[in-house]
Amino acid sequence: MPLLVVGSVAIDSIETPKGRAPSIIGGSATHFSYAASFFTPVRLVGVVGEDFPEEYLALLRSRPIDLAGLQIRKGRSFRWSGRYQSSMASAETLSVELNLFGEFDPVLPDGFKRSPFVFLANGSPHVQRRVLEQVDAGAERFVLLDTMNLWIEVEHRALLEMLGRVDGVVLNDEEIRQLTREPNLIAAGRRVLDLGPRVVIVKKGEHGALLFAGDRIFAAPAYPVEKVVDPTGAGDTFAAGFMATLAAEGRPRPDFDTLRRGVCLGVVAASLNVEDFSLNRLARATREEIVARYRSYIDVLRVDGDAGIAAGRAAGVVESRLA
Amino acid sequence: MPLLVVGSVAIDSIETPKGRAPSIIGGSATHFSYAASFFTPVRLVGVVGEDFPEEYLALLRSRPIDLAGLQIRKGRSFRWSGRYQSSMASAETLSVELNLFGEFDPVLPDGFKRSPFVFLANGSPHVQRRVLEQVDAGAERFVLLDTMNLWIEVEHRALLEMLGRVDGVVLNDEEIRQLTREPNLIAAGRRVLDLGPRVVIVKKGEHGALLFAGDRIFAAPAYPVEKVVDPTGAGDTFAAGFMATLAAEGRPRPDFDTLRRGVCLGVVAASLNVEDFSLNRLARATREEIVARYRSYIDVLRVDGDAGIAAGRAAGVVESRLA
Repeated sequence: MPLLVVGSVAIDSIETPKGRAPSIIGGSATHFSYAASFFTPVRLVGVVGEDFPEEYLALLRSRPIDLAGLQIRKGRSFRWSGRYQSSMASAETLSVELNLFGEFDPVLPDGFKRSPFVFLANGSPHVQRRVLEQVDAGAERFVLLDTMNLWIEVEHRALLEMLGRVDGVVLNDEEIRQLTREPNLIAAGRRVLDLGPRVVIVKKGEHGALLFAGDRIFAAPAYPVEKVVDPTGAGDTFAAGFMATLAAEGRPRPDFDTLRRGVCLGVVAASLNVEDFSLNRLARATREEIVARYRSYIDVLRVDGDAGIAAGRAAGVVESRLA
Repeated sequence: MPLLVVGSVAIDSIETPKGRAPSIIGGSATHFSYAASFFTPVRLVGVVGEDFPEEYLALLRSRPIDLAGLQIRKGRSFRWSGRYQSSMASAETLSVELNLFGEFDPVLPDGFKRSPFVFLANGSPHVQRRVLEQVDAGAERFVLLDTMNLWIEVEHRALLEMLGRVDGVVLNDEEIRQLTREPNLIAAGRRVLDLGPRVVIVKKGEHGALLFAGDRIFAAPAYPVEKVVDPTGAGDTFAAGFMATLAAEGRPRPDFDTLRRGVCLGVVAASLNVEDFSLNRLARATREEIVARYRSYIDVLRVDGDAGIAAGRAAGVVESRLA
């Protein structure tokens, strides 16, 4: 089922301990749509300037990504330049030019208004609300919202209002601590559930992710990646794997099993994304390769070598061999 | 099968955002032996002074912990005072008095020399070597070593030598980065395998643990704990759950399944330990409660609600519902 994303399409310049990549394709909607397109058709809404390289548009067009909602306007595209230190934990922004994205007014083509799966990528809560107002409210849908420290600080009230209107929210560990003023991530996750969303996901970078829904929790470690080249877009790629699972399974009202599989595909998609700059690694990937890594990830999670051995039996082994 | 631990038995004074606890029982060998004793008999080697409260010794004696190797000598016990900030990630040492532990010369009672499972708790590599020299080398055994930033820095060569002589090593994320000068934990874990041990475990506090053995990796998230009262001893309690699993299963040559179960029991034991000061929480626990939490932890890890659904099938769901 089709998956709508509204967010940035950008030109990035990135330095990491593994190298430099000037003027590459970036942006939240870019990373999200490219990764999700391996599993479900994607509808992209965003804005770029006339300076946006044709070859980058061709890269998106080469995938099942509908660009009917991508405005190409007079002016310059969103540009971001950043640097990562050795831990790769967070980027230092060297320069940012919002350009056309600073006055972005998302307009959904009529054909996009009936979208059962929606990702509101990081952006002002006001812009996110504008999107939600255009999506057909009648049909069943699952809307996931992303945000950042800036909006938590300067648009706190508008953000809280949005949290009351979406189905899920994805935050990183710093952001959820900032939002809730609660240092314990388990307590923080539960507190955000109380703010409205049925699903809360905490992204922890190299430490994986936590999923909260109702009174249930799923803790997903990261897929082990030995050589991280560039973490940019990992969060959006994670969200893509998650939302693509819901869309591919056709579940706007996902049960906990679907949510867990979504988190796992998110972890796996993100693990590929960080192995090279920009979309380079995903552009070399195939659906089969992603599914193979998903399988090997499940093996990394599994407690018994024999997958047929369930929780009770594993605990039973410990129990029955007590001294 | 019996499990030997050599390490500190101490009097701690601790402040955390959840409260203060002056002059409580602490020490690596204390936390380790108490937690492990739920699953296997323990032999403790350590030293305390005449100031060590009788009630604390009684607490250890109330469990299947053999104190024949605990020297009670003229002088003062090891005392440590520390404070945790809100994140609970690491302690600030307020004061430390090594006292008798500073000149600790471990002597194994004859009955302890044949120990198939040995935990060398954090201590000078020279003291750890002294222990190893007394353990009967003829029999099959599994020796796990713990260490800290101090020894990595000031006893680097002696520590490396010990890594070539033990079966497993447990380090936290900062320590393994310091030891290998490799920021990526996956790469760092593999590098430590090259130094000798067959098993490497990285403890990541609230983010769980990583297990490396041969070319296999198991990533274990932490058990979700909403209210962390005091993290002191969590690492030793983790090591206890791990070693107790090997001992309870009787496997000095553990296969990967046993290692994984050990890591899981370690995570679960540590999650109980942090819910109160000192041994308070474990003193209220029963073996049944620990096993019940182990079961619920396996549920936190599991990717499909139906435990019978294995990796392949979960991946298959994603695969077969592709748009």
